[in-house]
Amino acid sequence: MPMNFNAGPASLPLAALERAKTELLDFAGTGISVMEHSHRGKEYEAVHDEAMSLVRELFAVPRGYEVLFLQGGASLEFATVPMNFLPPGASADYIVTGAWSEKAHAEASAWAAMVRASVRLAASTKDSGYTRVALAEEARLDENAAFVHFASNETIHGVQYLELPRFGNAPLVCDMSSEFLSRKVDLRAFSLVYGGAQKNIGPSGVTVVIASNDFIARGRQDLPTILQYRAHAKAKSLLNTPSTFGIYLMRNVLAWLKGEGGLATIEARNRAKAAELYAVMDALSGFYRSPVQRASRSVMNVVFRLSSEDMEKRFLAEAAQNAMIGLKGHRSVGGIRASLYNAVEPDWVSALASLMKEFARRNG
Amino acid sequence: MPMNFNAGPASLPLAALERAKTELLDFAGTGISVMEHSHRGKEYEAVHDEAMSLVRELFAVPRGYEVLFLQGGASLEFATVPMNFLPPGASADYIVTGAWSEKAHAEASAWAAMVRASVRLAASTKDSGYTRVALAEEARLDENAAFVHFASNETIHGVQYLELPRFGNAPLVCDMSSEFLSRKVDLRAFSLVYGGAQKNIGPSGVTVVIASNDFIARGRQDLPTILQYRAHAKAKSLLNTPSTFGIYLMRNVLAWLKGEGGLATIEARNRAKAAELYAVMDALSGFYRSPVQRASRSVMNVVFRLSSEDMEKRFLAEAAQNAMIGLKGHRSVGGIRASLYNAVEPDWVSALASLMKEFARRNG
Repeated sequence: MPMNFNAGPASLPLAALERAKTELLDFAGTGISVMEHSHRGKEYEAVHDEAMSLVRELFAVPRGYEVLFLQGGASLEFATVPMNFLPPGASADYIVTGAWSEKAHAEASAWAAMVRASVRLAASTKDSGYTRVALAEEARLDENAAFVHFASNETIHGVQYLELPRFGNAPLVCDMSSEFLSRKVDLRAFSLVYGGAQKNIGPSGVTVVIASNDFIARGRQDLPTILQYRAHAKAKSLLNTPSTFGIYLMRNVLAWLKGEGGLATIEARNRAKAAELYAVMDALSGFYRSPVQRASRSVMNVVFRLSSEDMEKRFLAEAAQNAMIGLKGHRSVGGIRASLYNAVEPDWVSALASLMKEFARRNG
Repeated sequence: MPMNFNAGPASLPLAALERAKTELLDFAGTGISVMEHSHRGKEYEAVHDEAMSLVRELFAVPRGYEVLFLQGGASLEFATVPMNFLPPGASADYIVTGAWSEKAHAEASAWAAMVRASVRLAASTKDSGYTRVALAEEARLDENAAFVHFASNETIHGVQYLELPRFGNAPLVCDMSSEFLSRKVDLRAFSLVYGGAQKNIGPSGVTVVIASNDFIARGRQDLPTILQYRAHAKAKSLLNTPSTFGIYLMRNVLAWLKGEGGLATIEARNRAKAAELYAVMDALSGFYRSPVQRASRSVMNVVFRLSSEDMEKRFLAEAAQNAMIGLKGHRSVGGIRASLYNAVEPDWVSALASLMKEFARRNG
């Protein structure tokens, strides 16, 4: 089995996949696949409810917050968040710290132009080449903002808020896609957070949204129903047919996560994995270069450069020879990226760290 | 294995599921699951491209038409069709023949109210209790309509256009969810058709849209990108992470369909399955009652009533004892519904027909 460092879709826990394989043709003794069950039948609903309960339990979702299972990825949330919460005349603040929050800002701006609302770029680290997060102190906030949006981790640029920030007193909305359920978070600080499942908690095709009932209730009521968070919350995410197999597989992953000890355990493990790679980079700083400022180095996506693109190609080729895959940086930025999501085993990271040392010794 | 008559998610071909099971942990010799592959890697892209080619080949998609793999189900299309093609000041005609086209009409009306466009109810068979389709002749069409929308099959009411209609000369848009790839269709008559995969061609979580490039090009360009068909077409449905496992499984189903002989074979088989049940109903018309007018009887969803709800409950209980599941009518209408999608085997239908005869004999 290769060591899979893909940025998403990404490695999944073997136990979760084995469970799916065992019962793929015969779910819970019913003689048919979970994919063939009605989303309104008791067999599937038990899975749906268990997945929701596991999110609540593992992520310590506060009372008064809804957990929603939607489709369309974080990219659809980029549009539906302003559609719901940015009515005509209102204004929202966006914090841009990488490619994903840049997209979120662009989508919100398109919507704002359509409905005569405003989107403000309250802070951006683009000038730095997205090598750091934006501090709350540097944001030019609108105290009347309908909400403030930021991304807690930027997959492409490898930049993360290691301490989650507050941005004034407006409702806080966060794209947590690439760190969802990788560490403990005090969700009471947020009005709405969202994430695609395909990094830490499942296959692609499932989006998890967690939002306070108060915030959901503020959403526009004249949108088409399918675009209203309110409607999904009321229908317990069965407003229309959800991605039943995706939610089932997510349930398997969440059950594995609970068995591993939950977020406290996985957070410590994730920090240790990232620390091992950053330590190699720091020790061999003449050979490996982290483009990211130290205080913003992502625990999830560790990016680094070598002396030349040619050297990077050779590194990737050697990694592939050693059964390490998914290490090529995003095509928009190049370089190397090791994504260290929950299912990435510490042994794989140690093997990568060894290769980095060995490769530097031979080529340094 | 039970005989699965679910309305969707529904029965899937065993061969497609077995293929998935065999390679669930090791896709194409890569040592990891297809779910763990990047959507931008060559292994997944081969699956994505093959699924798209199979849709094109099996459904005889004309040149100048795009095939899109999206998320959110037909319910999201109910909103995105008017968002793209119903700009301020424009008007669209809706034909309503059951619960689903009624929803499509409601969603479009919500959007129209937001942007000061119009939605006209050009025809409705609600007065009949949705027991028949609406003929083109009875539709009060607007010759300047931006498009005309209808549903070719209504899953809940069991009503289908056995001959696909033309409604004037405006671009024709059709929700084909519950009959997608169950019969040959001349797609050149349509500007855009869509369907959730979870009836005939795959698991839930994948929506297939087929649209002419000309029509796509007319869509609004100021919407958030993720909501524009144009953007998905340009990105070959890889604008953002698609439901990779859903598309993979759909590929397996389409490969099975091709092996069975494609749409000509499956259409004949589907018609024969439905004919067998309608023949029993007609022969035992004192015991079983089809609420649907003869010319509108669906080949996909065969609905019928017995003399009382109590008798229906007893019928469902006997069916369950005979390993037939998914026969309960939709909660909004009651009665019995047998969904006879592509993967439902003729033997199962014959077994159901036998049970119907036997049950009537004992209780008539």
